[in-house]
Amino acid sequence: MKRTIEWKDDGVYIIDQTALPDELRIIRCEDYERMAVAIERMEIRGAPAIGVAAAMGIALAAKNCSNGPELQEKLKRAYNRLKSTRPTARNLFWALERMRKVWEESPKESSNALKEKVINEALAIAEEDAAVCRDIGKNGAALISDGDGVLTHCNAGALACVEHGTALGVIRTAHEEGKKFVVYACETRPLLQGARLTAFELKQEKIPFKLITDNMAAYVMKKGLVKKVIVGADLITRHGDVVNKIGTYGLAALAKHHNIPFYVAAPLSTIDLNARPDGVPIEERAPSEVTHIRGVRIAPEGTEVINPAFDLTPRQLVSAIITERGVAHPPYDLSLLFRQGNNRINRIVR
Amino acid sequence: MKRTIEWKDDGVYIIDQTALPDELRIIRCEDYERMAVAIERMEIRGAPAIGVAAAMGIALAAKNCSNGPELQEKLKRAYNRLKSTRPTARNLFWALERMRKVWEESPKESSNALKEKVINEALAIAEEDAAVCRDIGKNGAALISDGDGVLTHCNAGALACVEHGTALGVIRTAHEEGKKFVVYACETRPLLQGARLTAFELKQEKIPFKLITDNMAAYVMKKGLVKKVIVGADLITRHGDVVNKIGTYGLAALAKHHNIPFYVAAPLSTIDLNARPDGVPIEERAPSEVTHIRGVRIAPEGTEVINPAFDLTPRQLVSAIITERGVAHPPYDLSLLFRQGNNRINRIVR
Repeated sequence: MKRTIEWKDDGVYIIDQTALPDELRIIRCEDYERMAVAIERMEIRGAPAIGVAAAMGIALAAKNCSNGPELQEKLKRAYNRLKSTRPTARNLFWALERMRKVWEESPKESSNALKEKVINEALAIAEEDAAVCRDIGKNGAALISDGDGVLTHCNAGALACVEHGTALGVIRTAHEEGKKFVVYACETRPLLQGARLTAFELKQEKIPFKLITDNMAAYVMKKGLVKKVIVGADLITRHGDVVNKIGTYGLAALAKHHNIPFYVAAPLSTIDLNARPDGVPIEERAPSEVTHIRGVRIAPEGTEVINPAFDLTPRQLVSAIITERGVAHPPYDLSLLFRQGNNRINRIVR
Repeated sequence: MKRTIEWKDDGVYIIDQTALPDELRIIRCEDYERMAVAIERMEIRGAPAIGVAAAMGIALAAKNCSNGPELQEKLKRAYNRLKSTRPTARNLFWALERMRKVWEESPKESSNALKEKVINEALAIAEEDAAVCRDIGKNGAALISDGDGVLTHCNAGALACVEHGTALGVIRTAHEEGKKFVVYACETRPLLQGARLTAFELKQEKIPFKLITDNMAAYVMKKGLVKKVIVGADLITRHGDVVNKIGTYGLAALAKHHNIPFYVAAPLSTIDLNARPDGVPIEERAPSEVTHIRGVRIAPEGTEVINPAFDLTPRQLVSAIITERGVAHPPYDLSLLFRQGNNRINRIVR
């Protein structure tokens, strides 16, 4: 499989990210319910990827439905089900809203024509994601220099998108351009996306890297081994506050302490114009993710934990945001919205 | 077993800390070589505990030796072997030097008398450690208030000492005094001493706590849940730089970022008057500790890692050092040495 998620005649194929790196297992989702479960189980994860997955879930609902008035009903049911899978990543809701527009704007369309439109929109979202990541890669690669140490967290790679990746897309493009640098990959407890997925991708691409436990980040920064930090994002507020995998905020604060630039790489679809920094729902996941690792218990029975899947990095700690339309610098309410093509801002900036 | 390490007629008994929390397994060390291996394997770990373990290793060498000139030779062999087990924790070398003085200062002693002296010195080191931890607990408990959230790292508990503990000793005493507070225990990758050992101890003592992954520390700090950070130490320079479990330095920098006091609790035997902050040997341990967790592989084959067991927290980030002779504040070269009974400093301070 060339991509993390692919539409084929007999279903949507996804790489099971819970099985990596032990096994490259492919899951075929034949209906939207299986896709919703895949998102919940994090068999597919990463903000851009779950946006595409949700869109393809809707497309599966369209494809599997008989013609007639039940089509719109089924699309709405799929929409609601997929929307309930995970609460934080903006791209999920962005993709679902975009899909909803298709049927809302075509109330009189024949069933066959509507199905085709819905499926084409999902395929377009996937194609755009691939192109956007390439552009993010190109824009961000300019920030990486020979001899750099680049620290990243979680997995914002091909596996988090359709292909190429956001933060890892930047690293990938810089590597393709022939730059020589070393990546420090934080393992990213509790689910170890850094150790399992980022290490897997970097190894495949033969990009030099060292895996570290999350609590070694400050150590490598103090040693002068890290020149840049680059991470992805699950949601960005209009002011540039960044919601991303738990641990990101700590890395941003440590980068600040060591005067290291802290970059966020994400498509503009990650921006939520209405989100307030203190109002973003932070998903709290099962305690067993903390008390167990890959199925093995590590803490005494009955141990209480907290398990927020994300944290929020205040805009003040974000040096720049790398988007498909260039690198945005503070103040982000201008620089981001300008890139998003916001008309009011375009008037101001022009 | 009431203590982490106990001298008995047929050997030295230690709690196997690699088996916790799954199993409370006791290891009997019959000779100094087994004790050296126990320290290397981290079956016994924690700076004060390995100091006591090394002293008891010497005592075993004495006990097992036939009388005659070979006794001094055997003691020296045991000394060299035990000294080579781990490079960083000061208390190991402190205890071994103290043991060496016994035979160096008694060159004409009969074998039986020397053996008795050596064994008694090891027992005295163990007894003193227990008393010292109680005093550290009492001195530090004054810093904890009702309603606090207290974050700790690794295990500086009874298991890291003979009993009671240093950082956890403070927490234990505050709990005994009836104070109501919550502990946030960082799991402490790679070897998970927080999840396995600190959680085990806190649960036994019925002290309320929550286990967090190391990368959640900044999150709970920003939420205002943490009012104090307390950790142990493996080595403290005369100026108050603190070498402790990897991750400690990051926590200290994050505490600073959030204006949270950062306390270190350790016996005065942890101070190395000659150590320079950039000259402390940092043990680099096996890569498999990072690529595997409890025997389960988490990263692709061939993944490169770094695995420093410790880091150094500069004195500027240390709010106070809790010792058995009171709480030392900056400047530490005066406050620590005064407590250590350094004559020159005592003259200056008086």
